[in-house]
Amino acid sequence: MLEDKNQNRTSLAKLGEFGLIEHITKYFNVKNDTTIKAIGDDAAVLDASEKQTVITTDLLIEGVHFDLSYMPLKHLGYKAIMVNLSDVYAMNAIAEQVTVSIAISNRFPLEAVEELYAGIQLACETYNIDLIGGDTTSSTKGMLISVTAIGKAKKDDIVYRNTAKPTDLIVVSGDLGAAYLGLQVLEREKQVFNVDPNNQPDLDNYTYLIERQLKPEARKDVTTILADLEVKPTAMIDISDGLSSELFHICTQSKVGCKIYENKLPLDPQVISTCEEFELDSTMVALSGGEDYELLFTVPIADFDKIKGNPNFSIIGHITEENQGLQLITRAEQEIELKAQGWNSFKE
Amino acid sequence: MLEDKNQNRTSLAKLGEFGLIEHITKYFNVKNDTTIKAIGDDAAVLDASEKQTVITTDLLIEGVHFDLSYMPLKHLGYKAIMVNLSDVYAMNAIAEQVTVSIAISNRFPLEAVEELYAGIQLACETYNIDLIGGDTTSSTKGMLISVTAIGKAKKDDIVYRNTAKPTDLIVVSGDLGAAYLGLQVLEREKQVFNVDPNNQPDLDNYTYLIERQLKPEARKDVTTILADLEVKPTAMIDISDGLSSELFHICTQSKVGCKIYENKLPLDPQVISTCEEFELDSTMVALSGGEDYELLFTVPIADFDKIKGNPNFSIIGHITEENQGLQLITRAEQEIELKAQGWNSFKE
Repeated sequence: MLEDKNQNRTSLAKLGEFGLIEHITKYFNVKNDTTIKAIGDDAAVLDASEKQTVITTDLLIEGVHFDLSYMPLKHLGYKAIMVNLSDVYAMNAIAEQVTVSIAISNRFPLEAVEELYAGIQLACETYNIDLIGGDTTSSTKGMLISVTAIGKAKKDDIVYRNTAKPTDLIVVSGDLGAAYLGLQVLEREKQVFNVDPNNQPDLDNYTYLIERQLKPEARKDVTTILADLEVKPTAMIDISDGLSSELFHICTQSKVGCKIYENKLPLDPQVISTCEEFELDSTMVALSGGEDYELLFTVPIADFDKIKGNPNFSIIGHITEENQGLQLITRAEQEIELKAQGWNSFKE
Repeated sequence: MLEDKNQNRTSLAKLGEFGLIEHITKYFNVKNDTTIKAIGDDAAVLDASEKQTVITTDLLIEGVHFDLSYMPLKHLGYKAIMVNLSDVYAMNAIAEQVTVSIAISNRFPLEAVEELYAGIQLACETYNIDLIGGDTTSSTKGMLISVTAIGKAKKDDIVYRNTAKPTDLIVVSGDLGAAYLGLQVLEREKQVFNVDPNNQPDLDNYTYLIERQLKPEARKDVTTILADLEVKPTAMIDISDGLSSELFHICTQSKVGCKIYENKLPLDPQVISTCEEFELDSTMVALSGGEDYELLFTVPIADFDKIKGNPNFSIIGHITEENQGLQLITRAEQEIELKAQGWNSFKE
C-alpha cells in the first residue's frame, strides 16, 4: 500500500485543496456531448434539451467543517443543504433536487439523525427542493454529510466564472464576515464552558453573527431580483471561502484583474463592534472570513444605475486588465495586492 | 446536543439501513414536476424533455466498506465508480457522468490520492463517463469516497423495481457469491500475514474470487444485450446486498411473491470449491453474499425462448402472487421461506 511507504511523499497540506483538485483532474477529458461544463465552476452543467441541468456537491465532516458541541444537528442539516444550493444559485439557476448521504458512528441515536433530517426537510420545504436519493451508512468515527444539488436553467441564463470583462462592476449581495465572527464567538463560549460549565453566556450582542454561522441562507432571491432589474451578470460565484479567494477565482478564470475598495465592503454593525472586541481587522475578516454564502458577481458598467441604489447589493469595485493584478484600495488610498486566503482543510 | 443525552435512545443497529431510510424519508414530498422518481429505486429519475436523467449516489468508508491493507487504492477508485454505475445500469439507462468527493486524513500522501484517481480515471475511460465535479477535503480519520452517478434514458426504456408481475421469469446476469468469497480469502490472508509477515500466499485457486472482490465490473453490456434480444425487463435491480435482499426489494415494491430454485443459481467452479474449503453453504453464499454487481431482472414468460440459451443469463425462478411469499425450492424439492439478509453497516 502506498500509505505504508515512507519515500517520495508529497504533502497534501502543502498542496492545499485547490492544488489537489487541479492535480487530480487534469487527466480527465470530457467525452459526452451532454457535458457542457465539468469541473471548474460552482456546479457542473449538463444539457437537457431546452434547459440545462446544473449539479454540485459538497462534503461536511465532523471535526473539520463542524463542531457538534455548539452546532445543533437541525442547523447542521439545514446548513448542509444551503451550502449546496448556494452553488446552484451562483450559476444563476433554480435549484430543484438534492441527494443526501450520511455516515454516522453508533454513538448517535436515531433521534440525532431525526434532528439532522428535520433541518434538511426544513431547508427543502423553504427552498422548494426535492430530496431524490442518498446513501446512509455507519462510520468508524463521527458524522459526515455528502450533498449533491441539482438545478435547471435556460442555457443563455447560466452565468459562469470565466466571463468577467475589464470595466465590469464588482457587486456583492448582503454583508461579509459575520459568519466567521459567529464561529469565533462560539469557539470562545466553548472554551468558557470547558472551564466553567455553570457560566451562562450572554450572547445578545452577537445574535446576527451566530445566526449567520449556524443558519446561513442561500441567496435564492438574487436571481429573481436581477431578472426583475433586467441585469444579467457577466460572471458569478458564491462566497464560501472568503471574498479574496472568490475574486481570485473569477479573475484567474476570466484572465482579468480587479480593483476593490476597502470603504465599499459591506459590514454589519455587529461585525464592526465584534472585530474591535476581538482585536481583529474588519477588512481582513470581510476578505478572508468565509462561509458568508453571499453572491459575488460582475455586471456591465452600463448597469450601474440599476444596481447602485438597491439595498440588496453593494458595488465594491471594478474589473481591470489582467496585468493590473488584484488590488485593494485602502481607506488611506494605498494600493495593496490581494492574496487568495481560502481555507485549506488539509493544514495541520 | 442529542448525542449527549442518555434517555429515549433508539438504536441505529436495531433499525438497520433500510429502516432508517424509510424512517427519515417518509416526511419528504415531491414538489417539482421534473422529479419523476425520488427515493425508492436504484437511482432517481428527472425529466429532461425527450430523455430522462437518472441520478444515484453511494458512500464508501474505510473500515466499513473497504480495508486498505488488501484493497489497492487504484482498485478502490475503480470500484467506487462501478458501485454507482451498476445502479444506473439497473435502471436500464446509459451512465454518462459522475461526481466524486473524497475526504482523507493527512496520513495519506499525494501519491495515494493519485493512485485512487488513476482507478477512477480508468473506470471513466472504460465506461465512457465524464467526471463533472466533486469535493475534496480532509478527514479526522481514514478515507471516504462519495460518488454520484448520472445517466440518461428514454422515458419508456427506464425499468423500475415495482413493476414485476406474477408469472414473470426471474433472471440474473453472470454468477453469484464470488465477491463475498474473495473477501473471505483476503481476510484470511490478512490474518496469516499478521501472524507471519514472511508467508507467501498462494492465491492461484482464488484468482476469480479476488478479482470479483477487488475489481468488479458493472454490467453495462446487459442493456445492449437485452435491446438486441428485443426484451424489455418488467423490473430490474442490481445485486449489491445479496440476491435475497434484492428479491425482497422487487417483491415488496411490486406487491408479488417469488419462487426461485436452488439448482438454478449460477455458481462459478471456484465458488463451489472454495465454499467446500471454508465449510460454507454455497447456496447461502449466493443468496446473501453481496457485492456481485450483477443485474437481477424479471421478463414476461413469453420471452423465455429469447433468454434461455443466452450464456450471459440464468433463469432462476418466477414471480408468484403476493400471498405466496418468497420461496426457495431446494435440490431436495423442499420449500424454504427466503429472508432478506442484506448487509447492515450499523451492526456492531
